[in-house]
Amino acid sequence: MPRKPPTSSPAGSRSSPPPVSRFRLRVTRGEAIAVGPGKVALLEAVERTGSITAAAKDLGMSYRRAWLLVDEVNHALREPAVESTKGGEGGGVSRLTPTGRRMVELYRGIERTAASACKADMARLVALLARD
Amino acid sequence: MPRKPPTSSPAGSRSSPPPVSRFRLRVTRGEAIAVGPGKVALLEAVERTGSITAAAKDLGMSYRRAWLLVDEVNHALREPAVESTKGGEGGGVSRLTPTGRRMVELYRGIERTAASACKADMARLVALLARD
Repeated sequence: MPRKPPTSSPAGSRSSPPPVSRFRLRVTRGEAIAVGPGKVALLEAVERTGSITAAAKDLGMSYRRAWLLVDEVNHALREPAVESTKGGEGGGVSRLTPTGRRMVELYRGIERTAASACKADMARLVALLARD
Repeated sequence: MPRKPPTSSPAGSRSSPPPVSRFRLRVTRGEAIAVGPGKVALLEAVERTGSITAAAKDLGMSYRRAWLLVDEVNHALREPAVESTKGGEGGGVSRLTPTGRRMVELYRGIERTAASACKADMARLVALLARD
């Protein structure tokens, strides 16, 4: 039986993992997050797996939570991001609408543009961190 | 006595506040956030108020929490971000070191650069949102 990779560093290890800098984009409306990293990851999982059930499982969240998030996104946008058909055996099928795909595409594109525009200053910021 | 502006929308109001898109930059190391929006806001408050006590009060956080966050930042960087002198009456005085100021400056600069580089796509993303 193959050995599983360790899930945490050895207890005696003193070296910390390398710093990772990351942008998170959120579109909020008052207190509510209309578009954010969690919702975008969920839409991507729906597109990848073809159902809300499978997407929830893939992301380790409850079906109920995934359904509520999809419902929130669908109501936050002018047009729904996810369309679902009632399924027979095995449950329903869900997929992104053109609006849903456009949203994911814009969101990831913005992250890439931001990371690329700020590359030099991000490196300067990370260089201020301790090395250990 | 001047009237205070309302802090929330009237109960009967149906219009939601306008969408706001915002970047959040975090530099993480494993699970720990080395630099993020909370810590940067705290450093700015220390610079503005001249003490951790006053900065904590300004941000509505406990002195203990503020002290712990400052301690984390100081240890995350090569050189401390905040230096404090033991005070007599009225408590100690704290201020940012050149490294602390540089960190805040880089962080806010990166946010501005990102927002400016992504302006057009952010507007396209916000345009996908419902109007109500």
